[in-house]
Amino acid sequence: MAHALKIGIAGLGTVGASLARILNGRHNKLADICGRPIEIVAVSARDPDKDRGVDLSGATFYADPVALAREADIDVFVELIGGEGDPALSAVREALSRGCHAVTANKALLARHGVELAGIAEEKGVLLNFEAAVAGGIPVIKAMRESLTGNSITRVFGILNGTCNYILTEMERCGLSFEDCLKEAQRLGYAEADPTFDVEGNDTAHKLALLTSLAFGTRIAPDDIYLEGISNITIEDIRAAADLGFRIKLLGVAQRTDSGIEQRVHPTMVPKDSVIAQVDGVTNAVAIDADVLGELMMSGPGAGGDATASAVMGDIADIAKARPGHQHGPVLGRPAVHLETYERARMRSHEGGYFIRLTVEDRTGVFASIAGHMSDNDISLESIVQRPGENGANGDRKTVILVTHATMEASVRKAVEAISADGYLVGKPQVIRIERPES
Amino acid sequence: MAHALKIGIAGLGTVGASLARILNGRHNKLADICGRPIEIVAVSARDPDKDRGVDLSGATFYADPVALAREADIDVFVELIGGEGDPALSAVREALSRGCHAVTANKALLARHGVELAGIAEEKGVLLNFEAAVAGGIPVIKAMRESLTGNSITRVFGILNGTCNYILTEMERCGLSFEDCLKEAQRLGYAEADPTFDVEGNDTAHKLALLTSLAFGTRIAPDDIYLEGISNITIEDIRAAADLGFRIKLLGVAQRTDSGIEQRVHPTMVPKDSVIAQVDGVTNAVAIDADVLGELMMSGPGAGGDATASAVMGDIADIAKARPGHQHGPVLGRPAVHLETYERARMRSHEGGYFIRLTVEDRTGVFASIAGHMSDNDISLESIVQRPGENGANGDRKTVILVTHATMEASVRKAVEAISADGYLVGKPQVIRIERPES
Repeated sequence: MAHALKIGIAGLGTVGASLARILNGRHNKLADICGRPIEIVAVSARDPDKDRGVDLSGATFYADPVALAREADIDVFVELIGGEGDPALSAVREALSRGCHAVTANKALLARHGVELAGIAEEKGVLLNFEAAVAGGIPVIKAMRESLTGNSITRVFGILNGTCNYILTEMERCGLSFEDCLKEAQRLGYAEADPTFDVEGNDTAHKLALLTSLAFGTRIAPDDIYLEGISNITIEDIRAAADLGFRIKLLGVAQRTDSGIEQRVHPTMVPKDSVIAQVDGVTNAVAIDADVLGELMMSGPGAGGDATASAVMGDIADIAKARPGHQHGPVLGRPAVHLETYERARMRSHEGGYFIRLTVEDRTGVFASIAGHMSDNDISLESIVQRPGENGANGDRKTVILVTHATMEASVRKAVEAISADGYLVGKPQVIRIERPES
Repeated sequence: MAHALKIGIAGLGTVGASLARILNGRHNKLADICGRPIEIVAVSARDPDKDRGVDLSGATFYADPVALAREADIDVFVELIGGEGDPALSAVREALSRGCHAVTANKALLARHGVELAGIAEEKGVLLNFEAAVAGGIPVIKAMRESLTGNSITRVFGILNGTCNYILTEMERCGLSFEDCLKEAQRLGYAEADPTFDVEGNDTAHKLALLTSLAFGTRIAPDDIYLEGISNITIEDIRAAADLGFRIKLLGVAQRTDSGIEQRVHPTMVPKDSVIAQVDGVTNAVAIDADVLGELMMSGPGAGGDATASAVMGDIADIAKARPGHQHGPVLGRPAVHLETYERARMRSHEGGYFIRLTVEDRTGVFASIAGHMSDNDISLESIVQRPGENGANGDRKTVILVTHATMEASVRKAVEAISADGYLVGKPQVIRIERPES
C-alpha cells in the first residue's frame, strides 16, 4: 500500500470534529477504498482542550492555522475556519504556495478570492477542492466540474439556504408570519441570532457566485448579484401563490442571456408540481440546465456538521486516490488564467413571468387602470384573481393578483408605478418573479 | 499542452454519433478544460458509410470492434455496442488487458461481468468508467464512488426505467389503461416493439445490481433480485393511490437489512408530496440514504442519445484530466478483490408498509373476515377505504383498500391467502409495497 496521506485540519468546530470522527472511525475502510491510509497529523483550534468526542492526541496542535499551513508536515490542508479574510485566506494561500493540496468549505473566502487561489493551485499542480462550500453535502461542484464537461450550461438555479427554505416551508405549513417562523428557526438553531446574512440572501449570493463561475467559465463576481431577501414575503403571498399553483422559494439563479449573465437572488414562484417545489425545510436543491444532457436536479442536506463533513471527506478521498502531484482538472472547471470576464446583464432587462399582488381601493376605475397600464406596457396576463382585502372587515379594499406571461422586468416596474400614480393602491405592491424548471 | 488522448469508439448508434459530435464540435473547449486535446482515432460500426452528421474521415475504421480494442493505437476504448456478451465483452476485456482505459454505457455487460472487468482494470492500473450505464446522464455512479466515500450507505432506490415511468405518468394523467399507454409509448419511441425487458423490470434490475454493489461493497448479483413489473397495475390502483396520498412508481430498491441485502424491483407507492413522486415521464431519479450525509436525491434524463453521450463524455474527460496510468480509485468503489459476497435477504422477510386492494362480494361477514385475518397476522392498519366495485352497475361488489403500517411481507401474504380462502374475494388481490423517502 502507498504511503499515508497526511492531513492538517484548521478549525475543529462541528464540521471539523465530525470530519475527524469519520477519518478515525472509518480508517481501514477508507484506506481500502483510497489505496492508502489517511492520517490526521496536525490540527489547529481556538481551544486545544475542548472535548470533541474524538481522540486527536496523535496530531500536532497549532494555535495558529497559518503556522500549521506553513510548517506542518502535511499533504493536504483542510480549512474549516470560515470567513472571507484572514486567517483563512493567508492559511490557504500559504498551503497552496508550498505545494500542499487544500480542501475548504468556505464559500465567503472563495467568492472573494477563489480565482486567485485557483491560480496558485494550478501553478503549483495541486488540487483545491470545495464541494462543501455550496449546498453542503450535495455533490454539485463535482457534477459541474467533472460530469458535465461535454455540456454548455445555460442556467443554474437552486435553493441554497436552508434557513430561508425552512422559514418559507413553515409559513405555508402553519399559516404563520415571517417573524414567527424566524423565531422558531432561531429556537431550533436553524437561524443565527442576527439572521440578516441568511434571510436577506447574502449567503445564497456567495454560493451562487461560485456556481456561476463554474457554469459559464467566468471570473467570480460576488458583487454583481441582484439581491432581494424573504423578509417582505407575507402569508398572503404564500396563500395566493398556492391558489394559483405555485410555491415560493428563495432561489439563486444564474442564466446566460443575450445581454450578459444574470445573477439574481430573490423570492421566486415555482410551479407546485415541479420537483424543486417539493424541496422542504432545511434541504437544499440545485438544478442545472445543460445543452446536451437536459435538466439535472440534485437535492439533499445543505448544512450541518455531518453533511458538510461528508462533502469535505469526499474531497479528501479524491486527493488520496490520485497520486500526489497529479492534478485532476482545473479548480473552477477551466484554468483560472482562461476564465472570462464577467459581463453583467441588467436586471431591468430580465425577461420572465411575474406574480403581482396589489391591494387596491374598491372603487370604479381600478380595473380599468390596472388593465390599461398592463396593456400600455405590452404585458400579457396569464391569470387575474380578485379577492376581498386582507382585512375582511374592511369592505373598501380588494386584493388583485396578476400572473403575467414572459415580459421584461422594466415593463413590469413601469406598469406598477403607473398604477400607483393613479392613486388606487393601498400599501406597497408585491412583485415576485416566476421561474419554470424543466421538470 | 500534453499529448492528445486517443480514443476509439466501438458502436456508432445514436449515443456514439452524439458523442462524436460533442468531441469534434467542442474540441478546443474540451482541450482547455482537460489540459489536452481528445482525438477520435478509431471507430467501428456495422455500416461504415451511413451519414451520422459528423466527419469521422480522420479515424481508422474497423469492421470488428474486438480488432479495434486489440490493435488500434488508442488510450481509451469506448464501448457503445450493448449486449451482455460478445463482441462487447471480448472487446472490453481485450482493451483493459493491454492497458487501455475503457468507458462503457453497457449495464447488461457490467451486471454480468463487471467484477471480472473491474479486476482486470485494477490489475492493469487503468480506469473502467460506466456513468452512462445507470440512470443515463445523472451522475449517480460518480456520487456513490467518489462523493460519498466517507459514508456507509443504508439504502439506494430509484426510478431507473424511463419507459415504465412514462407509462405510469400517462396512466395517471390521462386516466388510460396500461395497454393504451404502452401503445402510445411505442408510437413515441419510448418503448420497444417487444417491451417485456422494460415493463417487467429486467432493465431496472440490471441497473440496480450495479448500484447495490457500489452501495454495499458486495459482488454484483443480478440474479438475486425480486422482480415484479408494472403490467398488472390498473387505473383503479392509480386512482386509489391518489386518493390515499400516494403515487405509483416502478422502483429499484437495494437495502441492507439484518438478514442480508434486499434487492427488489416492483411497483411502489411513494407519498405524493415526496420529491421522487414528482419525477414524471421518461425522467429518472435516484435517492441514496447515507449515514453521515442523509438523503441525496438526483433526477434527470435517464436515456436518449444525448443524455447518455453526456455521461460518456464526462467519463472520458475524467481520464483525460488524470495522467495516463494513474488510476483514480477502484472501479466498483472498493477494490474488486475485496468485494464481499452478496448475502441475499429473503423477500418474505421484507418489512414495510403495504397497500392492499381487494375486490369482494358485498355480503355479511366480509369485513369480519378481512379484519380478523389482518389481526391474526399482527398487521396493524393505517387506513381502510371502501368503495363501490369497479363495475358500478354491479351492486354486489365492493373494492376494499387497506394501507398497513410496517409489517412483514410473509404476514401480508398469509393474511391475503386466508381472506381468499374464506371465499369472499372476486378476482386477484393487488398488493403494492410502500416506500418512504426521507424527503
